[in-house]
Amino acid sequence: MTLGLASMTEASWTKRALADLEEILVDHAHCEKKAASTALSLVFKYMEHSHFLPVLSALAREELRHFEQVLQHLAARDIPFRRQKPSPYAGRLMEACRKDEPDRLLDVLIVCSLIEARSLERMGILRDAVDDPELSRFYGNLLASEARHRAAYLDLARSVFPSEVVAHRHGELARHEARVIAEAPPWPRMHC
Amino acid sequence: MTLGLASMTEASWTKRALADLEEILVDHAHCEKKAASTALSLVFKYMEHSHFLPVLSALAREELRHFEQVLQHLAARDIPFRRQKPSPYAGRLMEACRKDEPDRLLDVLIVCSLIEARSLERMGILRDAVDDPELSRFYGNLLASEARHRAAYLDLARSVFPSEVVAHRHGELARHEARVIAEAPPWPRMHC
Repeated sequence: MTLGLASMTEASWTKRALADLEEILVDHAHCEKKAASTALSLVFKYMEHSHFLPVLSALAREELRHFEQVLQHLAARDIPFRRQKPSPYAGRLMEACRKDEPDRLLDVLIVCSLIEARSLERMGILRDAVDDPELSRFYGNLLASEARHRAAYLDLARSVFPSEVVAHRHGELARHEARVIAEAPPWPRMHC
Repeated sequence: MTLGLASMTEASWTKRALADLEEILVDHAHCEKKAASTALSLVFKYMEHSHFLPVLSALAREELRHFEQVLQHLAARDIPFRRQKPSPYAGRLMEACRKDEPDRLLDVLIVCSLIEARSLERMGILRDAVDDPELSRFYGNLLASEARHRAAYLDLARSVFPSEVVAHRHGELARHEARVIAEAPPWPRMHC
């Protein structure tokens, strides 16, 4: 499966997303903000892995830049940024992460890479499916970053754990991610 | 008093800082990281003030960029980044912030501006006092950003609260900040 995902997005998601692009855009802003916050929390938690720090800091900066860009797209369309009931997606992925170190570190890095991979897949779908040419271009422009972020998290994992350990656990967590996506409520969200 | 601070840094701080520049540099990295984290936490907490979001997000990005730059200066000097007993400074300033909204928002924004002002003052001192020309240049380069961040927090405060309310509370909290600095333990830290 491409991107290391264990399932492909169903056409029903695309239909739902196109029917409520406003909600998708607001959710997207929240996702970028949370991605920055997650990267920064890993800087605080795993500072002993000093080679993580510049990578995660630059990644958090890029997520914040995207957050600001989504806010601009919202403002240009007079869509107020607002609180939203969050998708259970990220929470359910985090629940699958083991509690004890160093297993937790491995699992969290893989989960981060899976979230980036799913975002990448869905932004690619939106790029091709949305009518708004500006939004289409925006999603298209984000693809390279999402792919880089996915690779960065896996590289960090492989810098601490043997490749075969990373690959095995990646397979398990990718199957879990596919179940979470299949069981997600039918809301208009990036990860439902 | 310049910078809105109610006291000037004593010569004893400069002496202490120069005597243990390694600890100051490590602390500086922690400060930039915490500054980014604080700005990002305000994005999460005060998202209803939509005009805050791009300002705080860009500010967090700049703090992260500085964090990465301090890490480079540490690496160039073979100084490992490490955990440190943090100065009680920021914690004591936060304790002075009122608990109920909207007072808390006003107080937190002013405290953030005071921290930026104190950092600005001390980086100016270090620029002139350190022997290492590269470090001196680095501190010099940061001054404009610290001044902008200080002004940004005050502008956000004035966008929500009347100027005279901001000015009055700023005076009270600046006097508190001066007491906290005067009572700080004699450790080599940016804010001791």
